[in-house]
Amino acid sequence: MYRSHTCGELRATHINEEVTLSGWVQKIRNKGFMIWVDIRDRYGVTQLIFDEERTPKEMMEQAAQLGREFVIQVKGKVIERESKNPQLPTGDIEILVSEFTLLNASLTPPFTIENETDGGEELRMKYRYLDIRRNPVKESLMFRHKVGMNVRNYLSQEGFIEVETPYLIKSTPEGARDFVVPSRMNEGQFYALPQSPQTFKQLLMVGGMDKYFQIVKCFRDEDLRADRQPEFTQIDCEMAFVEQEDILNIFEGLTRHLLRDIKGVEIGDFPRMTYADAMKKYGNDKPDIRFGMEFAELNDLVKGKGFNVFDEQELIVGIAVPGAASYTRKQIDALINWVKRPQIGANGLIWAKYNEDGSLKSSVDKFYSEEDLTAWAKETGANPGDLILVMGGNTDTTRTQLSALRMHLATELGLRNANEFAPLWVVDFPLLEWDEETKRFHAMHHPFTSPKPEDKKLLETDPGAVRANAYDLVLNGNEIGGGSIRIHDKATQAKMFDYLGFTPEEAKAQFGFLMNAFEYGAPPHGGLAFGFDRLVAILGGQETIRDFIAFPKNNAGRDVMIDAPSKLDEEQLKELHLQVKL
Amino acid sequence: MYRSHTCGELRATHINEEVTLSGWVQKIRNKGFMIWVDIRDRYGVTQLIFDEERTPKEMMEQAAQLGREFVIQVKGKVIERESKNPQLPTGDIEILVSEFTLLNASLTPPFTIENETDGGEELRMKYRYLDIRRNPVKESLMFRHKVGMNVRNYLSQEGFIEVETPYLIKSTPEGARDFVVPSRMNEGQFYALPQSPQTFKQLLMVGGMDKYFQIVKCFRDEDLRADRQPEFTQIDCEMAFVEQEDILNIFEGLTRHLLRDIKGVEIGDFPRMTYADAMKKYGNDKPDIRFGMEFAELNDLVKGKGFNVFDEQELIVGIAVPGAASYTRKQIDALINWVKRPQIGANGLIWAKYNEDGSLKSSVDKFYSEEDLTAWAKETGANPGDLILVMGGNTDTTRTQLSALRMHLATELGLRNANEFAPLWVVDFPLLEWDEETKRFHAMHHPFTSPKPEDKKLLETDPGAVRANAYDLVLNGNEIGGGSIRIHDKATQAKMFDYLGFTPEEAKAQFGFLMNAFEYGAPPHGGLAFGFDRLVAILGGQETIRDFIAFPKNNAGRDVMIDAPSKLDEEQLKELHLQVKL
Repeated sequence: MYRSHTCGELRATHINEEVTLSGWVQKIRNKGFMIWVDIRDRYGVTQLIFDEERTPKEMMEQAAQLGREFVIQVKGKVIERESKNPQLPTGDIEILVSEFTLLNASLTPPFTIENETDGGEELRMKYRYLDIRRNPVKESLMFRHKVGMNVRNYLSQEGFIEVETPYLIKSTPEGARDFVVPSRMNEGQFYALPQSPQTFKQLLMVGGMDKYFQIVKCFRDEDLRADRQPEFTQIDCEMAFVEQEDILNIFEGLTRHLLRDIKGVEIGDFPRMTYADAMKKYGNDKPDIRFGMEFAELNDLVKGKGFNVFDEQELIVGIAVPGAASYTRKQIDALINWVKRPQIGANGLIWAKYNEDGSLKSSVDKFYSEEDLTAWAKETGANPGDLILVMGGNTDTTRTQLSALRMHLATELGLRNANEFAPLWVVDFPLLEWDEETKRFHAMHHPFTSPKPEDKKLLETDPGAVRANAYDLVLNGNEIGGGSIRIHDKATQAKMFDYLGFTPEEAKAQFGFLMNAFEYGAPPHGGLAFGFDRLVAILGGQETIRDFIAFPKNNAGRDVMIDAPSKLDEEQLKELHLQVKL
Repeated sequence: MYRSHTCGELRATHINEEVTLSGWVQKIRNKGFMIWVDIRDRYGVTQLIFDEERTPKEMMEQAAQLGREFVIQVKGKVIERESKNPQLPTGDIEILVSEFTLLNASLTPPFTIENETDGGEELRMKYRYLDIRRNPVKESLMFRHKVGMNVRNYLSQEGFIEVETPYLIKSTPEGARDFVVPSRMNEGQFYALPQSPQTFKQLLMVGGMDKYFQIVKCFRDEDLRADRQPEFTQIDCEMAFVEQEDILNIFEGLTRHLLRDIKGVEIGDFPRMTYADAMKKYGNDKPDIRFGMEFAELNDLVKGKGFNVFDEQELIVGIAVPGAASYTRKQIDALINWVKRPQIGANGLIWAKYNEDGSLKSSVDKFYSEEDLTAWAKETGANPGDLILVMGGNTDTTRTQLSALRMHLATELGLRNANEFAPLWVVDFPLLEWDEETKRFHAMHHPFTSPKPEDKKLLETDPGAVRANAYDLVLNGNEIGGGSIRIHDKATQAKMFDYLGFTPEEAKAQFGFLMNAFEYGAPPHGGLAFGFDRLVAILGGQETIRDFIAFPKNNAGRDVMIDAPSKLDEEQLKELHLQVKL
């Protein structure tokens, strides 16, 4: 038996017990006559003591030769510590070692195994097994497990059945790119790895499973943007005999439950907002509503006052920045430069200070009277002490730019508190979205999403205006989930494929099995999927997902630890009937 | 809202309530003046009633036009049934329908949606979404979910952390064949899908995770034997600072827990048996110990009595078949023919009847006296009324043949009761196994398995005799799990790769990251993996795994429902820098 207790377990109540511990050497302090060694495992740290009065000489020498991250086993007596460490759960005691075994030595680790490490990202990834020993990473992985168990138990208690759908499926050119898998037994043919289990979960609904979920890996062979992974995990759900309202209620319940159980946070209001409103009020379909600074459209107030810059624009929109009337010229210039950067691409920023004394002062005083500015203040909800910022231009662009500025300001003003949680449903997404490049409509969610019945007639005349039964769950400005009520009849599904530019032959070749299934009594159904990596990171109070993934890949899709992907030898390629053509 | 209740929910206590149900038409009985419709969902079946006195004429006509598997929604009043059906949980009531909506029609399903269907295997697979509507399949999938939740909750409570390991890893030529995945971003390079997360779980132990588990898909591109799938699910576990005994105890606990919670079965004895004993007593490394018929080696008793057939053989071994002394000559001939079939390949079978009256009669009375036969009876443990069957030949072959006969007889005698559970640890497996084809030793478990310290010295002189710290969990004659204590130092691991015929360069290229990790304080560790598909099937009392997998592949590795794998178009191949060469 390698241990009687873990390194995080012993307390004053254990004093005088004989114990056995195993773990890693965290720290050594050698005073010559006395050596203290901190021994660490997943559960904590315990101090060992060797001293020349009580420890055999040979063991003193062994202890003196220990290095960081050596693996040792010790037996000894739990004794009271002279100088207690209240920071440490085991800080009341130490172990007077009587037996000592070196289980494994260690080379000097390439970075320090501490909460704050000196290792850079790349080094940490190459030696991820050492990085995982660090508390922040280890705890992130344990936190992920806790969230996963919580989700599973909640959904299971709600009557959902976890069903494993296949990983070796069929390639579909729709949407982002599939990873493919050559089949040795079926020469010249390929499987694809799922981008999501979408069609399978719909088939499970046709199969009467009623409530399905799965925490499942999905795959996307896309150029990796920051914080995207080629393999990622989804909480995938689907329900039969439901309307949008039923789904929102169930997953509002899950979100409340997670926040309560995991974070101890009770959510009061759980608002719903249409996509149109979100765009109008926040310039964004995943607004962070932990703070205000809502958009005010000012066209009626600012046009026709002789200020050409505004007169020419499609949309003029402003926000009130709380307490920022005191910003210096330099601070405001910094904001103007920030929005002019190519990443944002705005032409500039008009400002108006609503001073504490009630007076108003703007960068466009030449065109606008104090009365005009008072109207701006009213419209943006500015109070004395606030700074009003106004942008103008094409509607979509201006909203995007002001949304970025709003988030930037919130971060600067400390309004994005990682321990505050403000969930929100965004509903009534457009069904279709125009793609300038291919000059046709694409499915905004995916081609299985149903149009709102009352908008169906617009499909012929104004497809871009058709709203879908589609919804996103937004948490603190992040889209963490999204879904829709699906089409469940063959005719509508065929029509949708037609709108999306599929020929009937293509639709049949790729989704024939689903359309066939719709002919055998498909029930009304819908569902959603949460991005599990993102959800865990946000619940953990982090912006990036990488430390919540045990073995992530880098931005080139490489695992630098195992050095994958790599070349295959000719023999292996031959068996797969493949040739590489660079 | 599509329903107020499910189709399995209503009881006599609901009588007079107005309810809404949705589901599939299971059955229609049309008496003209009265129509009964059974409506089905995941939760059960409820009877609807339409009658000409109480139902509007138009609705009667609609009801009359319903077909099997149509999807309907009805509102109505719960009323007491005239002739109750005690077989059905909802059998006390029926619904007098007042509103009726056809949600979706259905073509006539290609096979009946009943517990016993008229559909053949291939048809059921092609329309798997209809097959899943059948109770046996639906319940198997729900049972799988229940077992999965149980395993997760048990291991989580025992301090195990579920960590997701990557699916896009590195190809290793060792063992069965990898599925590979070309990388678009890394031209000419490939990932591999994991055959198991073996190296990653070991790295998690190096990373201090201490106790890891994962219910995870694994992949093997092998020619499919019966009841194998190219993708399959494992319960994968690993622990640090453990010896074999610790692992056996934990997973004995899991097995007991599952049998108690899932099957209501309390396991008394949980025996351990060495591999050598299992081979000697059952001719098999996964013995079914629900019944006796243990092997008795009879060399000393049968040789030198003038019966040449036995004198020449390496091993003579017998079993006592309970109550089979009454077998007719014809029955015994059938057994002899059974073992002579090419699948078994035995030369024959010697028999001796130990009659109820105590007399003994054999097929070799010419050579063996009643006294000799009495000694056989004693050695095989035969009682009056039993039949002794004896085979001889080369040790390995004879054991295999008699083991097959033992299982055949047990099935014939009804000794393999699916509701009885007899788990067993088989321990001390050989480390290496000689492969006649390649003329070298292979790892019996895998190359990371540690030899027993006391056998290490035999590695140089008699490698085949070295025992490993490896163990299998056997349940009712099926291997459901296996594992080992791993090597955790670089030197031993390098030596093992050497024994297995890897050059140092090959070992480094394929497993360099693991050997490097061993240099940074790798703890002693070990683990095991359960075959989840098999475990669920056995707990479910079934021999085959296919109905416990939602969307299985056929023996050619094809999903006949979605028609995968399939060809890629040229464009897609070009992007992957690949060419198919048939």
